[in-house]
Amino acid sequence: MTTPIPTLNQNPSPEQQPERLELLIEQGDAEQCTRWVNENKAADVIHDASHLSDAQRTKLLEMLPSEEAAGLIEQLPMPQAVGGIESIDTIKAAEIIGQLHSDDQADLVAELDDEDAQRIIEQLDEQSADNLRRLSVYDPDTAGGLMVTEFLVYQRQQTIRYVLDDLEQNAPRYAKFNVQYTYIVEDDGRVVGVLPLRRLMLAQRGATLESVMIPDPVTLADDTRLDDVQQLFKEHGYIGLPVIDSAGRLQGVVERSAVDQAMSEQADNVYRQSQGIVGGEELRSMPLLLRSRRRLAWLSANIVLNIIAASVIAMHQDTLEAVIALAVFLPIISDMSGCSGNQAVAVSMRELTLGVARPGDIIRVVVKEASVGIVNGVVLGIIIGAVAFFWKGNPYLGGVVGIALMINTIIAVMIGGTVPLVLKGLKLDPALASGPILTTVTDLCGFLLVLTLASNALDYLQ
Amino acid sequence: MTTPIPTLNQNPSPEQQPERLELLIEQGDAEQCTRWVNENKAADVIHDASHLSDAQRTKLLEMLPSEEAAGLIEQLPMPQAVGGIESIDTIKAAEIIGQLHSDDQADLVAELDDEDAQRIIEQLDEQSADNLRRLSVYDPDTAGGLMVTEFLVYQRQQTIRYVLDDLEQNAPRYAKFNVQYTYIVEDDGRVVGVLPLRRLMLAQRGATLESVMIPDPVTLADDTRLDDVQQLFKEHGYIGLPVIDSAGRLQGVVERSAVDQAMSEQADNVYRQSQGIVGGEELRSMPLLLRSRRRLAWLSANIVLNIIAASVIAMHQDTLEAVIALAVFLPIISDMSGCSGNQAVAVSMRELTLGVARPGDIIRVVVKEASVGIVNGVVLGIIIGAVAFFWKGNPYLGGVVGIALMINTIIAVMIGGTVPLVLKGLKLDPALASGPILTTVTDLCGFLLVLTLASNALDYLQ
Repeated sequence: MTTPIPTLNQNPSPEQQPERLELLIEQGDAEQCTRWVNENKAADVIHDASHLSDAQRTKLLEMLPSEEAAGLIEQLPMPQAVGGIESIDTIKAAEIIGQLHSDDQADLVAELDDEDAQRIIEQLDEQSADNLRRLSVYDPDTAGGLMVTEFLVYQRQQTIRYVLDDLEQNAPRYAKFNVQYTYIVEDDGRVVGVLPLRRLMLAQRGATLESVMIPDPVTLADDTRLDDVQQLFKEHGYIGLPVIDSAGRLQGVVERSAVDQAMSEQADNVYRQSQGIVGGEELRSMPLLLRSRRRLAWLSANIVLNIIAASVIAMHQDTLEAVIALAVFLPIISDMSGCSGNQAVAVSMRELTLGVARPGDIIRVVVKEASVGIVNGVVLGIIIGAVAFFWKGNPYLGGVVGIALMINTIIAVMIGGTVPLVLKGLKLDPALASGPILTTVTDLCGFLLVLTLASNALDYLQ
Repeated sequence: MTTPIPTLNQNPSPEQQPERLELLIEQGDAEQCTRWVNENKAADVIHDASHLSDAQRTKLLEMLPSEEAAGLIEQLPMPQAVGGIESIDTIKAAEIIGQLHSDDQADLVAELDDEDAQRIIEQLDEQSADNLRRLSVYDPDTAGGLMVTEFLVYQRQQTIRYVLDDLEQNAPRYAKFNVQYTYIVEDDGRVVGVLPLRRLMLAQRGATLESVMIPDPVTLADDTRLDDVQQLFKEHGYIGLPVIDSAGRLQGVVERSAVDQAMSEQADNVYRQSQGIVGGEELRSMPLLLRSRRRLAWLSANIVLNIIAASVIAMHQDTLEAVIALAVFLPIISDMSGCSGNQAVAVSMRELTLGVARPGDIIRVVVKEASVGIVNGVVLGIIIGAVAFFWKGNPYLGGVVGIALMINTIIAVMIGGTVPLVLKGLKLDPALASGPILTTVTDLCGFLLVLTLASNALDYLQ
């Protein structure tokens, strides 16, 4: 955030020329590369830089001045930023990292190999190194992991005028701070008050901080989880909250934007995991075998679950052989039940995010889903039953597939609605596991329903 | 954001008692209801209030003082907030809305029935009403729709001291402003400079604004789309950007947090739509038939697509009858191809968000996906082929289903990777349509592959 890439953003961008960037890198023309980065739209810079080979990207980072390189590192997708930093010279890497905000530093360093991180931290100035070591102990999804360590502290007996003068005199030192609040602390570092910058500016200049500060401010324990941090921000409407350790000492400040960004990342993650991209972010610039391996890990778990579900069909081959038309409906029932169930999963995930549903609400969710399941099951059952009936002219065939889809829709939405709550209650990741659990159960039940109903009505179906 | 619910958040929350809130509402005990809202954790208040019946929620809003009611409205899920505002007395509704920030006002009023909105706007003070009318012309996902209309403006020849004095003297009037920047405008309203509050505080008191302001500041045209607004914030690291109309006149300020929240909403939407929750947010407190109807709209489109795909099976019944074991593998191949394709969809959606992929990158995506598809297709094909072979002891059966899954995996990832880019290029919503298009095509191809291969190898399969 601290080192935006200067751009001519307002101007219409010239024709996109990714070959030219590659060419400039191959030629080793540092000056032209820097100009290219500075003069193109940020969106184009990121797009083209992300499409370079790893070797080219490394060379580019080495050629750019550290400020431009830091701007690029900040905007590249994390895996590419990490790869870039790890592959360049340690001193240059430290220079680039030195340009970042403390929380961005910590996020990036946390992703590096331990050894690389160690080497780079040794090259940083003492304060940055200290901060990084302190921040590195925190889980990224806690207040400690979200906070920045640049903040302003004063004493309760100081005056508004003193603070304003201090800010004026030490302007260069505070230049990197995102100053929205000043904190009033005791000698031992415990926070006793907060003074929003706005309130500070609106106060009489001679007043002591104690007289205008908000006493006993809302604070975050450093191990507060992201969800709870977000809840507090939502509740209080602040744009920053102080983070304290177990002794009440001020450790840093969580900015609202860090929370919003973390929530946005989380929503992205939920989507990605629900679609089977697990084990971390995937970019198409990553090595083929890494991408294949990660996707396969998920797919091979799914194929096992699929085979288990389909074994129900294998066990009822006789029925199927007698009424081959059923084979047409098995994939439809499997897929439609999955769709219905996934809708219920999505609603539960949303209600969990909004704080409207909790693991304790399972009974309410079951009841609410069952009612939707009955309505939708009847409608879908009638549709598929009618198709089967008109196709083969056999009302019993229509009845079997219609009733099977109806019952399975009800099962699917009840399971889909509750699985995320159960997983959440068990402290497991609902985004990751809800889908496979749901589809396995609904496939199994669906096949079983169709084939059991059919075997009981075999005389009427042939 | 302006009217946080005062809470005793730091205290451990007492045992949750939703019945008590309902009871207090039934009894019409306004004072006790207000205390209940103020004394419980915000998370509990939201949870319990969202579980009330619509009638109870209306009664609660009517009983609460407008400040507490506004706090509740701000935190309730939007559909419940809208329902609440529409069902209470117009004057009370206007009072509550008057307590909100201008952008929250606009978001809420935009969701109301036109008639309700009109009646409420008429009850607001002139300035709020004016603002709302101005904001209501903007699409919510543009700079105009994201901005707040509370901002500070000064003239270039005024001094730092003048501004500080003005802030001090007019403190009450500015209390609702989220002051981070002051803007320097010409007489005609055109923005000529920006002065971040921090820079203002650090400046010499006698300096004119012109001498310390950042001239020609980055501005947003009022019709700039959310994606581009986000890109600009990412690029420049500001926490607010001024919005101008076509004549360059200052209209409002977009705060970074509004953008982050809108992005987070968008990510939630992508997930929800990909799971088949379309036509707006669903909460389980909504009427059953509304929930059923919306889900069915999606499901009935899907069942048609499913029937089309499955008709391929119907056309190859002879083959299936001859080799009934194939029926076991059809749902597996359909489901696994869907899984593989959805992974590719998710990677493309992510690369679109990151700005790493664009509609113009289709060839690159096809090549990258095809290579993953070959590796994963071979592995999955071998697994399923081996299962088929060991089950029936027939290597040809293994070959048919293995090769079919292999080829279909390659097709699925290529289609999954490109469909979001194509839809984006056509200005359609990739989150909404990618899934159904993908699964229909992969089901069709999968069934066709298995059954065509099998019919050609029929002599060896029996």
